Parts: sequence; C-alpha cells; structure tokens
Amino acid sequence: MAFDRLIENIVNTQNPSVVGLDPRLEYVPRFIVERRIEKHGRTLKAAAKAILDFNKAIIDEIHDICPAIKPQAAYYEMYGFEGVKTLYKTIQYAQEKGMFVITDGKRNDIGATMEAYAAAHLGFSEVGGEQLEAFGSDALTVNGYLGTDGISPLLSLCKAYDKGIFVLVKTSNKSSGELQDQKLESGKTVYAAMGDMCEKWGAEVMGRYGYSGVGAVVGATYPEQLEEMRKALPTTFFLVPGYGAQGGGAEGVSKGFDENGLGAIVNSSRGVMCAYKKEGCDEHDFAQAARREVIRMKEDIISFLPKIVLPE
Amino acid sequence: MAFDRLIENIVNTQNPSVVGLDPRLEYVPRFIVERRIEKHGRTLKAAAKAILDFNKAIIDEIHDICPAIKPQAAYYEMYGFEGVKTLYKTIQYAQEKGMFVITDGKRNDIGATMEAYAAAHLGFSEVGGEQLEAFGSDALTVNGYLGTDGISPLLSLCKAYDKGIFVLVKTSNKSSGELQDQKLESGKTVYAAMGDMCEKWGAEVMGRYGYSGVGAVVGATYPEQLEEMRKALPTTFFLVPGYGAQGGGAEGVSKGFDENGLGAIVNSSRGVMCAYKKEGCDEHDFAQAARREVIRMKEDIISFLPKIVLPE
Repeated sequence: MAFDRLIENIVNTQNPSVVGLDPRLEYVPRFIVERRIEKHGRTLKAAAKAILDFNKAIIDEIHDICPAIKPQAAYYEMYGFEGVKTLYKTIQYAQEKGMFVITDGKRNDIGATMEAYAAAHLGFSEVGGEQLEAFGSDALTVNGYLGTDGISPLLSLCKAYDKGIFVLVKTSNKSSGELQDQKLESGKTVYAAMGDMCEKWGAEVMGRYGYSGVGAVVGATYPEQLEEMRKALPTTFFLVPGYGAQGGGAEGVSKGFDENGLGAIVNSSRGVMCAYKKEGCDEHDFAQAARREVIRMKEDIISFLPKIVLPE
Repeated sequence: MAFDRLIENIVNTQNPSVVGLDPRLEYVPRFIVERRIEKHGRTLKAAAKAILDFNKAIIDEIHDICPAIKPQAAYYEMYGFEGVKTLYKTIQYAQEKGMFVITDGKRNDIGATMEAYAAAHLGFSEVGGEQLEAFGSDALTVNGYLGTDGISPLLSLCKAYDKGIFVLVKTSNKSSGELQDQKLESGKTVYAAMGDMCEKWGAEVMGRYGYSGVGAVVGATYPEQLEEMRKALPTTFFLVPGYGAQGGGAEGVSKGFDENGLGAIVNSSRGVMCAYKKEGCDEHDFAQAARREVIRMKEDIISFLPKIVLPE
C-alpha cells in the first residue's frame, strides 16, 4: 500500500536515494551511441536504443544497492515514440530487478483526462475487454495546480494497485518562488497550501509505516522549506530533487527526514549518470562509476541521519 | 511568429474553435475498433491504430472548416508507446492538411528538463549531428507552477521556430478554485498572478496581430474570469476549454474575445468526437457527424461575436 514497498526497499538497502535516469544523449558514452548509429542511422530510434543500453547497464550495476529509479519522461519524449518505448522498457527492466520506479512526468489535468494519465502510468487500459498495462510504473509525479479533481482519479488507482504519487510542492529551481513562495491572504505560502492538500488527499491512502500514497516534491535546494514541510506534513513522504549538480547538500536534505531516517528519498540524476565523466575514467567503465557514485551519495546522506529502521 | 498562423487560420475559416482529439477508445465506432482487434489482437497496438483511423477520418472531414486540432496527450499515453506513435502521426497528418496543432500536454519542469520537453514537442533533438523532429507540434499547453525558468526554454523555441505555448491560468474544472482562486497578499488571485506572468513572458515573443506566443488557458465554465482576464491580458491569446460537454456556453465564451472577434479559440472534444452518438446516426457516419457539429458549434460561437477580421 502507498509507498510501503519503496520504504521497505530503502530499509533493505539502507539507502534513501533514488537515481534519476534523465539520459540526455550527451550523457551516454560515445561507444554506445556510435554503435547504435551504425546500426540504425542518425535516427530517433538509434538515440532511443542507445539510451536503453545505457539505462540497463546502470540498473544492472545499482539495483542491489539502490531502492529506486526515477526516469524523467521529458528525456524520453524528446526522442519521439521510440524514446517513449525506451521509457517503457526501462521501467519494466528496473522492476524485474526489484527496483521501485517513479516516473517523473509532472502530469496534470482535469478529472476525466487525469484518469487517462492515471491509467497510462499507474494503471491499466482496456482494449476489447483485456486490461493492459501501458507503462506500469510504481509512482508518478504530478502537478496539483488544478486542485482535487485533478488528483482524485489517481487516489483510487493508488488504492487499487498499490501505487503512489508525488505532488509538486516546493520545486528545486531558482524561480520556484515566483508563484510557490507567494503568501496567500491566510498568511500561508502557496507551497504550504499545496502541502496541506497533500496531507488531505493522502488521508485516503494511508500505508503501514505512517506515510500515505500521496507524497510531495520538495527541493534539496531549499532546506528551510524542507524542515518546515517535514513538521507540517507528518504523513507525506518527500521526493527531494536538487542534490548534487543543482547545489543541494546532504546536511540540508537531512531536514526532510524523520526520526527513523525515513520520510524522504533524495534524487541524483546527472551526478550518477555522468560519474564516469567526473571521475575521468574510461567511458566503458560508466556503469561501475555510477555504482561508486551511488555508494558515495548514500554514505554522504546517511551520515546526517539516524539509522534507517521501520517504525515500530 | 507566435500565434499568427493560428490567427490566420481562424480568419480564413471564420471559425474560432478547435477540435480536441481526446479519443477514449469507447468514442471510436465499434466497426473501427473491431477491425483493428481482428488484425492486431486485443493489444495496445490495436487501440492505437483504431484511434489513428478515427482521427484521420475526422481530420479529413473538418480540415477545411476548422483551424486547429488539440490532441490531448493523456489519451495517447494510455495506450503506451503505440498510442504515442498515434499522437505523432495525428499531428503530422493534421499539419499536412494545413491545420494548426496544439498538443495538450500541460508539461512542466525545471529549466534543463523543460528544454527537453520543448525539444520533444515544439523543436528538434540532435542525434549524431542531425536535427530531428520528435513530435513537431505547433503549440503546447504548459503549467507555470514552477515559474520563469520552467517557461523560458520554451520562449526561445517559440521565437526560433514560430511556435506557441498556452499556460494554465484558470482551468475549466470544478475544483480549479482550490488553489487558483486563492487570494495573495497583494489582493490578486493566484490565477491573475499567473496571467500577469503570461503577459510578461509573452513580451519576448510578440506576433504581428497584437498577440504574443504565450497564450493562456481560461475555462469556458468561468465567463467572469474570462472577461476579467481578457481585460487584464491584452496581448495574451486564450485557449478556452469546457465548451459544450463541460457546461460552458457560447455567450459565456464570447467574453474571451476582442473587438475583432479574435483573442481566443474555443475547444470542443467530446461534442465533436461523439457527435454521431448524440445524433443517433449510423456509426459509419461518425466523421460527417463531426463535421456537422463543427459547423453548429462555429455558428453558435460566432453568433455572439463581431465579424472576425485581422486587426488593421
């Protein structure tokens, strides 16, 4: 239920971090890209296949030490339907290896259309009486600007199929404050009001470990807001982007965790995917470099946390 | 530049409406679905192919009297990458027939990732030095919750490739007010603050006819807000969903238009796609029924407008 499987994966690996698979083609080692271009020409298909090769190799290396991946839909869509096929195959591959998959799509729409997104990413679509999985992810990031009827179609799916959503509350980017930090007449900020809605929505889909199936995205680049939200939203699990390349540090992100070392999962994308570039190692060693970075990041983050345990 | 091509299409057809191609499989006549299931089994591919057949037939019937289509990404994603392939083919087909295509994806993310969405839907992706179009739409709906750096990557593309975006301002759904109608300390509502940002962003991408490449989504179900926003946002073109099935009427949507009968385009999805069901005609006649509904809708809307002319 809710994020229980994610939480169990975190406890089993003692690692509250998630690897963002946001594979810009320039992150993929040249030997992989060239091999695929040789076979498929300079096509979207070649790019999509190269990215799948890259993702699989990284998943092979990290699945035993990392609880989850977070593929970012934009980087697959930019290679057209071939890219989107790679998104699907990446999700399936990671799940086969026991990983929890969060599709970062920030989807949002009104009720009936949100049902379609829910079916697409977390549920099933019916064709001639058959129930078919389109993407079959475990969780989806969503944008709550449209209010409750843009969220409720997801809640019933979260309940029925043991899935979760993360709602954007306070994003990691510089201009996130333009709207999100504005104060409402009530004195609350827009992001705090969105956080309150997460708690309310989540009450319908509570899990075993004190967290609901409605999580919140709160950026690592805003530790004060992370601390504020951790206190204000006791049943909301946090997805924390912005660690590493975007400037968020481990001490800052520790503000998003609870006394059991739970309550948040920290994302790193570029840091892991491009570890081989940073290390300056042979590019054929990219997946092992990714593993080394996952371990480094985990050690960095847990050094500021209590031991990670399931709540009693 | 900006929405100039859309505006010219509207003037040429004397029709300020757009057909939303949001093809739930149950909207597609049974004979089409059955034919595809016979060929491809009960698969996502069969659904995707049936939807493409359906879309093409409707486009064939309406392209000469309707300026634009608005495919809703969710209904394609729910059939997986095969569905997304149908989205691509629908976009290409409508453009070949001279229609302006608005992909309704409500995409949003931080800067670097928004660049990927921009490349995906409005621009080009590079593979081995080749610039390739992934979806190649003319405009994209986006969600501005993340602020300027989630929007600016789109502005440079709008300029470079003559494209546009529509930012969610006041959505047509019932619970849109939960966040959007809240008042900020300044006394403005959240939606009005978002509208102001549209004007600001749009200043960078002004078109020939007084409207910028940054439009706003304002629901037909809120005529008062349409009127308020039309006055407050003189250079922002409106995409108006919620006419018909959702309850918005022609008199109400007229509030979104200017003195030249321009400034807005009204969407109908179900009303057109399911016209054959409402009429009770033979389902083989679905595309002609769609055409009849496009004409009826156009007449309904323009009856409340001045003659549609390009500004002098």
